[in-house]
Amino acid sequence: MSQDTIPWSREEFEARLRAKEKYYHIHHPYHVLMASGELNREQIQGWVANRFYYQITIPRKDSAIMANCPDRETRRKWMQRVMDHDGYGDDPGGIEAWIQLGIACGLSREDITSLRHVLPGVRFAVDAYLNFARTATWQEAACSSLTELFAPTIHKQRLAGWPDLYPWIAADGLAYFRKRVTQASRDVEHGIEITLDHFKTREQQERALEILQFKLDILWSMLDAMYLAYVDKKPPYFNIA
Amino acid sequence: MSQDTIPWSREEFEARLRAKEKYYHIHHPYHVLMASGELNREQIQGWVANRFYYQITIPRKDSAIMANCPDRETRRKWMQRVMDHDGYGDDPGGIEAWIQLGIACGLSREDITSLRHVLPGVRFAVDAYLNFARTATWQEAACSSLTELFAPTIHKQRLAGWPDLYPWIAADGLAYFRKRVTQASRDVEHGIEITLDHFKTREQQERALEILQFKLDILWSMLDAMYLAYVDKKPPYFNIA
Repeated sequence: MSQDTIPWSREEFEARLRAKEKYYHIHHPYHVLMASGELNREQIQGWVANRFYYQITIPRKDSAIMANCPDRETRRKWMQRVMDHDGYGDDPGGIEAWIQLGIACGLSREDITSLRHVLPGVRFAVDAYLNFARTATWQEAACSSLTELFAPTIHKQRLAGWPDLYPWIAADGLAYFRKRVTQASRDVEHGIEITLDHFKTREQQERALEILQFKLDILWSMLDAMYLAYVDKKPPYFNIA
Repeated sequence: MSQDTIPWSREEFEARLRAKEKYYHIHHPYHVLMASGELNREQIQGWVANRFYYQITIPRKDSAIMANCPDRETRRKWMQRVMDHDGYGDDPGGIEAWIQLGIACGLSREDITSLRHVLPGVRFAVDAYLNFARTATWQEAACSSLTELFAPTIHKQRLAGWPDLYPWIAADGLAYFRKRVTQASRDVEHGIEITLDHFKTREQQERALEILQFKLDILWSMLDAMYLAYVDKKPPYFNIA
């Protein structure tokens, strides 16, 4: 075996997945502005309204993974993700929590749920994610969810920063971020286990890195569209109102 | 509007859906033999082992419907079906209950879960159902689930008849049928509501009847394959052992 066909050890493979953090949207200019308190009210609202399209797609993406997965134990665990977002029983779920975030930012429920502020570039990126989950193997789609490796940090950053940076946002609007810190940490253990178990050869491991990059690009590209519209104010979508 | 383009009333549409009962597999020769106590041990075992392939496909079919459904309230209700079959928390679920039925009929867990007794005709029919749910609209796929209109009767028939007809089957093996009586009744209310609400024009209503017929044909065709193998003993699949 030549050097570059030897599979990475489990530890090195995981380290290479985690090293993708440099492409996480926490480093996107739009998010950097957000985290330093430099977004105005309209730019925060634009982000919340656009990101809602991603939020409502998550349980459909996770259902697609379950539809493609013949392993009952995996489906039983994966179902928790759908319940986290759609809600179950008395829990109204993460989608409703995101609507509450939007309301705390001054949007109406209708502003958010009508999807009228969702930018074409955001829609295309999110749709690409759902389409991938529908057509890829369930292990590949599970691997694509691994951006959750980096999610607790971004949620904690918002929880710590927003009350001072954006005092006009009602504090109870941040409940979504609080919940996701624990949920994402739990999910990532399952996702990483599936990925480390499934992608065994060097070729497969490299494919897993590509898949994670694809998902990172989706999140990044969503913010590109928002930057153009709400920071650069490029036509035709520069106004949230 | 000519006579045959006027939509049926809600009541007539529902009555026409219910009139499809005559094509339900309760009337298939294999099931008639089963209900009259005329199947031998091998023929019962063959049915349980083959039907297992349908059982494990149900939660994937229901997840596909959820993946295609943008309506959160519908997904929240539909998720219950996945949980019924896959289990959740302490409930081991319907698939496990079906395995217990197989064990009560003298099969080993491995006989069942290996899928080695699943006949090609059964596999093709069940796969057609999953493929339909993946590619049809969620309302069409929900409509295809309406064979559950007729399911409580078939389960009650087994519960009432089997203890006398097949005393060699351990009574606790019948738990699956018992659970499904209430679950199917609950599911059918939701499924019929979606169907009556969605299929409004006469053309759409006729399409709904075709979809229900397609699903009835799937169940029927599964029993055709079993009849050929285990009653007619046609090669090459005539032996469960």
